[in-house]
Amino acid sequence: MAFCYGAPRMPELRRDPVVDRWVIIAPERADRPNALIRDFQLPDDEDGCPFCPGNEFLTPPEIAALREQGRWTWRIVPNRYPALRTEERMSRKGIGLYDRVAGVGAHEVIIETDSHKQPLHELPLPRISSVLRAVQDRILDLSRDVRLRSIVFFKNSGAIAGGSLSHAHSQLLALPIVPLELQRELEGARRHFEARERCIYCDVLDQEIGDRSRLVLETDLCVVLAPYAARTPFELLVLPREHRSAFERSSAEELSALASALRTALRKLDLALDRPAYNLYLHTLPLR
Amino acid sequence: MAFCYGAPRMPELRRDPVVDRWVIIAPERADRPNALIRDFQLPDDEDGCPFCPGNEFLTPPEIAALREQGRWTWRIVPNRYPALRTEERMSRKGIGLYDRVAGVGAHEVIIETDSHKQPLHELPLPRISSVLRAVQDRILDLSRDVRLRSIVFFKNSGAIAGGSLSHAHSQLLALPIVPLELQRELEGARRHFEARERCIYCDVLDQEIGDRSRLVLETDLCVVLAPYAARTPFELLVLPREHRSAFERSSAEELSALASALRTALRKLDLALDRPAYNLYLHTLPLR
Repeated sequence: MAFCYGAPRMPELRRDPVVDRWVIIAPERADRPNALIRDFQLPDDEDGCPFCPGNEFLTPPEIAALREQGRWTWRIVPNRYPALRTEERMSRKGIGLYDRVAGVGAHEVIIETDSHKQPLHELPLPRISSVLRAVQDRILDLSRDVRLRSIVFFKNSGAIAGGSLSHAHSQLLALPIVPLELQRELEGARRHFEARERCIYCDVLDQEIGDRSRLVLETDLCVVLAPYAARTPFELLVLPREHRSAFERSSAEELSALASALRTALRKLDLALDRPAYNLYLHTLPLR
Repeated sequence: MAFCYGAPRMPELRRDPVVDRWVIIAPERADRPNALIRDFQLPDDEDGCPFCPGNEFLTPPEIAALREQGRWTWRIVPNRYPALRTEERMSRKGIGLYDRVAGVGAHEVIIETDSHKQPLHELPLPRISSVLRAVQDRILDLSRDVRLRSIVFFKNSGAIAGGSLSHAHSQLLALPIVPLELQRELEGARRHFEARERCIYCDVLDQEIGDRSRLVLETDLCVVLAPYAARTPFELLVLPREHRSAFERSSAEELSALASALRTALRKLDLALDRPAYNLYLHTLPLR
């Protein structure tokens, strides 16, 4: 995400003319507290935390929530400093060499728990499943907007991973473009399928389950592994055992299995690395 | 860079089967102090600094240095925890779906100054030029090894940018593959040239010099600009004004101009952001 000054304050997407990579330019996000000069300790004050019960007035109006006996257990709200907005008029424009698209889309925050100090993987299993189902519902809802091409769901946990609040939360971006990383994965998978008429992820699973040296966890519906060409130490890949390309088409059972695999994997990391900061990304088929 | 345990302790390159990205797996680098669990304050003790005069015995034997009146002003040494080694036997291997190449190459450290607390951009201009010429000489020397395909020269300054020592230094990797990022830039530039018979970087320069809104610095031989599709706030691109594709073919005059542009740009960042951590990369044509 990048920022610019003195420019009109509407978010936009810009394409890198050399490598075909789109970036979001969101001037408003520079207004966040400590947006540019940050100290790498997150404030840990429940009183001022916009994600704590009692402080709901600090977030924009709620999109969805789960309530039990009058208390919420998770909430989804628009990001207060959105990188994209649904209200934007869709427009594409060339500026000499460059390509620009108005910042049409959505930027939502999933507040995963009402408890300030509880990380996602310390929640009871049904509550983790419920958060994943909420994300699935948001994707299904957003996918009806024909302007949107892809959804990126991610979690930056800890200041070093890019998190700016310590209360457990994740984010969802709905985009009018397909991000380069996802484009490349699709091209690679297509290349493999054209050559072999098999899914590359199914082939990877087969080989890893046979080899066993990089297997972290194996259940009926889910496999967690350390990728062969990991980019960082302790990178993990969580794959459904059955061929699936779109997260929003997962069954309730598959989401429960994913919740359980995520919980175990994140707990293992917590133990091995003493509560590390981490990034979590959902890789799923573009909407269109 | 990734790490693995219980595996043979020789560095290797591994290809991601989906996106064609190579990563270096270098088990030895896990032996570095604080390799895995790091605190984000760099130690600032000159006595134990392996890059300070008097502590030369803490580095592997010197590859090159500039000495004046018995004192060195810069030194180049092999990385003590190398990601790649020239002594490796070249071998390519398929492991089922996966591709592996032995970690043939070089991993060198450029100690930019004898003074522990002096950042690169506070050195006198002729000394910055001399460091850049030293890098150029190393590239020319390494380019004679026909097993090597590309050179990556980079600088991680500050703990948050991945630096692990505060004494000013940069690094050079000579690789038997072409990194994905560089491959994509080449493909993009080639696509543009095939369509228009013009260099894309020359076109970008033309447009930015005309537009002036993203121009940071302009000299006879160099232009510094904020890229249109910047990935981070304050990303800067330093381009030679004349069409050049290979750093090692720059003239002494061009290197002096680059030294001066780099110094000014880094000083501006220091002022604006109060000595930020930063990453610097050289983008240059693969060797073969």
